[in-house]
Amino acid sequence: MNQHFSYDTLYEFSNNIFLKIGCSETDAAIATRVLLSADLRGVDSHGVARLSGYVRLWEAGRVNAKPNIHITHETPSTAVVDGDAGLGLVVAPAAMQVAINKAMQVGTGWVSVQNSNHFGIAGYHAMMALPNDMIGIAMTNASALVAPTFGVEKLLGTNPIAVAIPAGVEPPFVADFATTTAANGKLEILQRKNEPTPQGWVQTKTGSMSTNANELKQGGALLPLGGDREHGSHKGYMLGSIVDIFSAILSGANYGPWVPPFPAYIPMPENMPGKGIGHFFGAMRIDAFRPASEFKQHMDQWIQRFRSSETVEGEKAVVIPGEPERAMEAIRYKEGFVLLEPVVKDLNLLSEKFEVKL
Amino acid sequence: MNQHFSYDTLYEFSNNIFLKIGCSETDAAIATRVLLSADLRGVDSHGVARLSGYVRLWEAGRVNAKPNIHITHETPSTAVVDGDAGLGLVVAPAAMQVAINKAMQVGTGWVSVQNSNHFGIAGYHAMMALPNDMIGIAMTNASALVAPTFGVEKLLGTNPIAVAIPAGVEPPFVADFATTTAANGKLEILQRKNEPTPQGWVQTKTGSMSTNANELKQGGALLPLGGDREHGSHKGYMLGSIVDIFSAILSGANYGPWVPPFPAYIPMPENMPGKGIGHFFGAMRIDAFRPASEFKQHMDQWIQRFRSSETVEGEKAVVIPGEPERAMEAIRYKEGFVLLEPVVKDLNLLSEKFEVKL
Repeated sequence: MNQHFSYDTLYEFSNNIFLKIGCSETDAAIATRVLLSADLRGVDSHGVARLSGYVRLWEAGRVNAKPNIHITHETPSTAVVDGDAGLGLVVAPAAMQVAINKAMQVGTGWVSVQNSNHFGIAGYHAMMALPNDMIGIAMTNASALVAPTFGVEKLLGTNPIAVAIPAGVEPPFVADFATTTAANGKLEILQRKNEPTPQGWVQTKTGSMSTNANELKQGGALLPLGGDREHGSHKGYMLGSIVDIFSAILSGANYGPWVPPFPAYIPMPENMPGKGIGHFFGAMRIDAFRPASEFKQHMDQWIQRFRSSETVEGEKAVVIPGEPERAMEAIRYKEGFVLLEPVVKDLNLLSEKFEVKL
Repeated sequence: MNQHFSYDTLYEFSNNIFLKIGCSETDAAIATRVLLSADLRGVDSHGVARLSGYVRLWEAGRVNAKPNIHITHETPSTAVVDGDAGLGLVVAPAAMQVAINKAMQVGTGWVSVQNSNHFGIAGYHAMMALPNDMIGIAMTNASALVAPTFGVEKLLGTNPIAVAIPAGVEPPFVADFATTTAANGKLEILQRKNEPTPQGWVQTKTGSMSTNANELKQGGALLPLGGDREHGSHKGYMLGSIVDIFSAILSGANYGPWVPPFPAYIPMPENMPGKGIGHFFGAMRIDAFRPASEFKQHMDQWIQRFRSSETVEGEKAVVIPGEPERAMEAIRYKEGFVLLEPVVKDLNLLSEKFEVKL
C-alpha cells in the first residue's frame, strides 16, 4: 500500500541508514539532504526510492562509506577531485564546494570528478552556487542506456545538465534536465501504469522506433533529446557526449559504455578505462562579469518578460525553469510525500535489516 | 544561374569588400576567414550569402568598421568585452583570444561580450582553442525567432552552442548546433524548394503545429529542440535561455525579444535593455585537469568506440561530431563551391557598388 511520510521522518530514517553503513555524521547529513531534495522537488526516481540501491552498492563493496575525497591536480581555476569511491551524494557537494572556492579567488572554478558514484539530482549541486551570487553548473555521466543517432548500441547515459542562475526579486532560474527526450524516471512511471510512451523516447534493439515502455528490458535503448535525426537527435547525442567527456575524460573516470551501472546486481563492464563514474561542476561569480545588482535586475526583467508572454490557448503561462520544482518543494516540505508500495516495502526491509525505526 | 567559385576568388572578393567598408587589413582578413569557414564547412546560410547583409548593417550605421574592441571588466579567469558595434566576425575571435590567454594563465578563461553583431558560425571560434590543447566553447544569442514551450511570442534566437575538444590521432570532436529542432538555414532550404517541414520544427502564430516552411513570415515561430512538451521542447527552451543569459545578461547586451535583428531593414526593438547582441566564450586548458597526452588517448578511444559501434540497418556509421563538416571542408577548399543564383546576384551588386572585381 502507498503510504504517507513527513519530511522529518524520512530525513531521520535516511540519516540513520547512512550512519549504519558507516558514514560520518557530517556525510550522513549531507547525503540525506541531497537524496531528499529529489523527493522535495518532485524527482521521485532520484530520491529515497534509491536509498536501498545505495546500500546495495555499499554491500557489494562498490561504495566507500569513509572516503578520502581529495584533489589530485589543480590550477587557480580548475581541479580534478578523486571521490575515493564515496557516495556521489557526498562527493558531489564536496567537489562543487571546491569550484565555488576557486570562483571566490579567480572568478570561476571548474572541477572534474573521478571515482564517484550516482550523485542524486544535478540541480542540488548547481544550486549550491546561488547563495554565493554565483552561477552554478553540474553534470554527470551515468551507465549507458542511450543509443547515439544512427546507432543501436547503448553508449551514453541520460547524462543530465543543471544550470542555476540567481535573480533579484524573482526566484532563481534553475534548469535540470536529462539530455535524452525523456529521463529514465519518466519511463518507469509509464511501466508502472502499463502505458505506452510517446514517439521518439525509445527504440528497439535493432533501432526501430517504439512506444513500448519496457523496450530497454528487451535490448532497446533510450533516445537522445530530439528522438530521431529529422527532429534533431544528433543535438541530444552531442550534448550527452559533451557531458560524458567533461565528466569522465577530463577527470579519468569511466566513459561511454564503460560507466559502472547503478544496480549492484549488474556486473561491472569489462576493460574499464577509468575509475568510477564522473561528474563536472562549474561556478561563475556574477561580479566577475558585472555588478551582481545590475545582473539580477536584468534577470528579473528577463523572467518577467517570459512569464507574462502570450501563451498557446489552454496553457496558463510560459514556465520559468525551476518554478514547478520550487512550488512542489514548498508543499512537500510542509505536507510530506506519499511513497509507492514497492518503495515502502524497500524501506521496511532496510528498517528491519539495520534495526532503524521508520 | 547558379555559379561555381573557387575559395581564393571568394576570399579575395570578400576581403576587398570588408576593406572597402573601412575595415583594417587585419580585421578584413579575419572577417573573411570566419565568414568563409561557414561555406567551407557546409553551413551555407552563414557564409558569403550573408556578406551583403553585413554591408547593409554597416550602411545603416549599425556596424562600426573600425571598432575599439576592449575589456571593460576582468578577473584572472573572466572578462567582459565591449565589441564597440564591430562586425561579430571580428569581435568574436578577439574575445575568444582573451579567453584563451586567460586559460594559459589560470587554467580556464570565460568571456561574455556585449555590443557585438552576428558572429558567423560558432564552431570557428570554439575551434580556436584546439591548437592550444584547450577545449573551446562558443555561443551567441540572436534575434528572436523561437517561441518558448507553451508560448506563442518569439522570445529567443536560435542561440547556437559550439564545443570543440582535441583528440590525439583522431581529429577533434566539434559540436556546433542551434538550440532549436532545426536551424533557420534548414528552413530556408525548404522554402527555396517549396517543400514542407517535418513536424516539430515550426508552429503557427497561435501555437498550432505546422509543416509550412514559410510559417515565420505569417507570424509563426521556430520551436526549441524537442518540438513540443511531450518530446522535450522545454529542454531546448532551457538551453536557448542559458545561451541568452550567458551571452547577454552577464555582459550587458540585449536579450530575449530585444536582440537586434540581422536584416538592416527590420526596425530595432523598442526599449532595448543593453548594447548590441551578446556572445559567450570559454577556453579550458586540458592540462589544467590532466596531462594532455592521457586525455587525448582516451578521446581517441571514445571516438573509436562510437564510430565502430553497431548501426541501425541502412546507416553507415555513428557520426562523430565535426566529421561531416571536416570532410566537406577538405573538398570545398580544393574544389570551390557552387553558389545559388540569388547569392550570385547579391555578390554582383556588391561588386558594382564597390567597384570590386568578382
